[in-house]
Amino acid sequence: MSRPRHDSRRLGVSIPMAAAPAAAPTHAPVSSSSACRAGIFSSGTSFPNFRSAAASVPGWRRREPYPAVSVVVGSAQSAPGAVAVDTEVDTLLDSVKWDNKGLAVAIAQNVDTGAILMQGFANKEALAKTISTRKATFFSRSRSSLWTKGETSMNFINVHDIFLDCDRDSIIYLGKPDGPTCHTGAETCYYTSVYDALQSSKPNEGRQVMTTLYSLEDTISRRQEEIVTEGGGKPSWTKKLLLDNQLLCSKIREEAGELIQTLLENEDQSRAASEMADLLYHAMVLLRVKDVKMEEVLEVLRKRFSQSGIEEKASRNKS
Amino acid sequence: MSRPRHDSRRLGVSIPMAAAPAAAPTHAPVSSSSACRAGIFSSGTSFPNFRSAAASVPGWRRREPYPAVSVVVGSAQSAPGAVAVDTEVDTLLDSVKWDNKGLAVAIAQNVDTGAILMQGFANKEALAKTISTRKATFFSRSRSSLWTKGETSMNFINVHDIFLDCDRDSIIYLGKPDGPTCHTGAETCYYTSVYDALQSSKPNEGRQVMTTLYSLEDTISRRQEEIVTEGGGKPSWTKKLLLDNQLLCSKIREEAGELIQTLLENEDQSRAASEMADLLYHAMVLLRVKDVKMEEVLEVLRKRFSQSGIEEKASRNKS
Repeated sequence: MSRPRHDSRRLGVSIPMAAAPAAAPTHAPVSSSSACRAGIFSSGTSFPNFRSAAASVPGWRRREPYPAVSVVVGSAQSAPGAVAVDTEVDTLLDSVKWDNKGLAVAIAQNVDTGAILMQGFANKEALAKTISTRKATFFSRSRSSLWTKGETSMNFINVHDIFLDCDRDSIIYLGKPDGPTCHTGAETCYYTSVYDALQSSKPNEGRQVMTTLYSLEDTISRRQEEIVTEGGGKPSWTKKLLLDNQLLCSKIREEAGELIQTLLENEDQSRAASEMADLLYHAMVLLRVKDVKMEEVLEVLRKRFSQSGIEEKASRNKS
Repeated sequence: MSRPRHDSRRLGVSIPMAAAPAAAPTHAPVSSSSACRAGIFSSGTSFPNFRSAAASVPGWRRREPYPAVSVVVGSAQSAPGAVAVDTEVDTLLDSVKWDNKGLAVAIAQNVDTGAILMQGFANKEALAKTISTRKATFFSRSRSSLWTKGETSMNFINVHDIFLDCDRDSIIYLGKPDGPTCHTGAETCYYTSVYDALQSSKPNEGRQVMTTLYSLEDTISRRQEEIVTEGGGKPSWTKKLLLDNQLLCSKIREEAGELIQTLLENEDQSRAASEMADLLYHAMVLLRVKDVKMEEVLEVLRKRFSQSGIEEKASRNKS
């Protein structure tokens, strides 16, 4: 069977989604046109160009380019009033229910894994700067200044979309981190489980917050680290799979067949969910053997979806 | 080929993980023994029993039952000082960096999908009550009282684990919601995209914050809703798959084979990620045809993992 090697043309769904932001500097020079439109500058600062940032990074469901809006954000040291924005952005910033200190909670979340990376606070300037630069930016309450996550570590959080909650006083920066988010080097700042801490008298840190898929991945990973000794009892099923490629491959083939069977034989929904769980688990064991993370797989899917029209190409290839 | 129907014995990994909390009432009666140990009661209130809640709900990596600790939490109207806790919980509660109003940010996240459901604030009582009852509980700043999400709607968030961030001033309640979290009926409170809002002059609400896997699921779902008309152009690849079970099944089989090939032929990691992406996408199209959500699949995986020792059973079955 021929195996096409042009992946970008294979999977294809034509809906564009959040592409990785361009690797622009945090303070991108503003174009003269948008500078003119913005009207107010803080002298001596550099200005991100909202127009280009917004236009180049469509969201999942976006079919049209973003409207031409520009934001001029003052430097971290600028005084209040240094934010100058177009009407649309201004209206949006005003719609946020800033607290009596001018702040709202801002949560950074990994667009691929869903991991909550960190939580800080944003003021109007921080949100405006995040909108324009696509780098997650917060207001440091201790330093009373803006700070863009990554400005020191270079581990920026590249923002793909921003969401407000129903009360408009809480913000999600949905983005892709360039590296570990926590100052400790951990992937996320949340690595202290309360129940672990209660179980142990000594501080029990180091277990990242993980949702089901990544807990499963972590479990498989720890199985791989286990040492199988003679007389040490039977290895776990996962370990057996990790040690036997032929067994693993036959299981993946079998589970794919059983998932298919739920469709062809009109089996019930719980059967389909169960067979998909089997397939996903066994495929993830293979990923572990190949040293590939689910996050990489999701990144592949996200990037494919950002290519408009590839579904049609794939369709032509297949028909 | 025989198809074992005892799913709970098939996949098995022996590491216990967060099981669904027991459907205990928010205010579970305290046992006399823990009541004695707690020492302080607020008269007229009922008391959750931390000991039983903690012991019955192990976390992902937990191998031993939780230590015997009890928490007595006052009612929402109780005065400060009505919280009486055992030493371990007291120490933990004291380790949180409560702000000058005694609050910390508390974020509720779906344990299976990773969706950020809502964000509120917790005070010491709210966290203590969440630890003990396993129902996400917050402090309402507007009402100056505790509130357990779901106490009116019955859409509780059943907490599987709780995480603190590196600064100990931010909390994640990792849990499973009984239903929509937002008071509007939306699954999460975050359904306003900033970039959508900037694109449209009218309020553009209704697009939930979604990470890659769920955006893909949503895209597939919208493809299913598309109406294919004669002369209306070629249907999308996803639509073709949705309409043709034989094509879909042959693709799933093919993609499973190609994933396997990356292992057997020692292909590179990017190839493995790419083939896994293909398999996942096509399998998710099948789930759409069967009207099964990825969240259900992940719930199956989570529940399987909560059964200690099933891996060994599976191993015996397979060998």
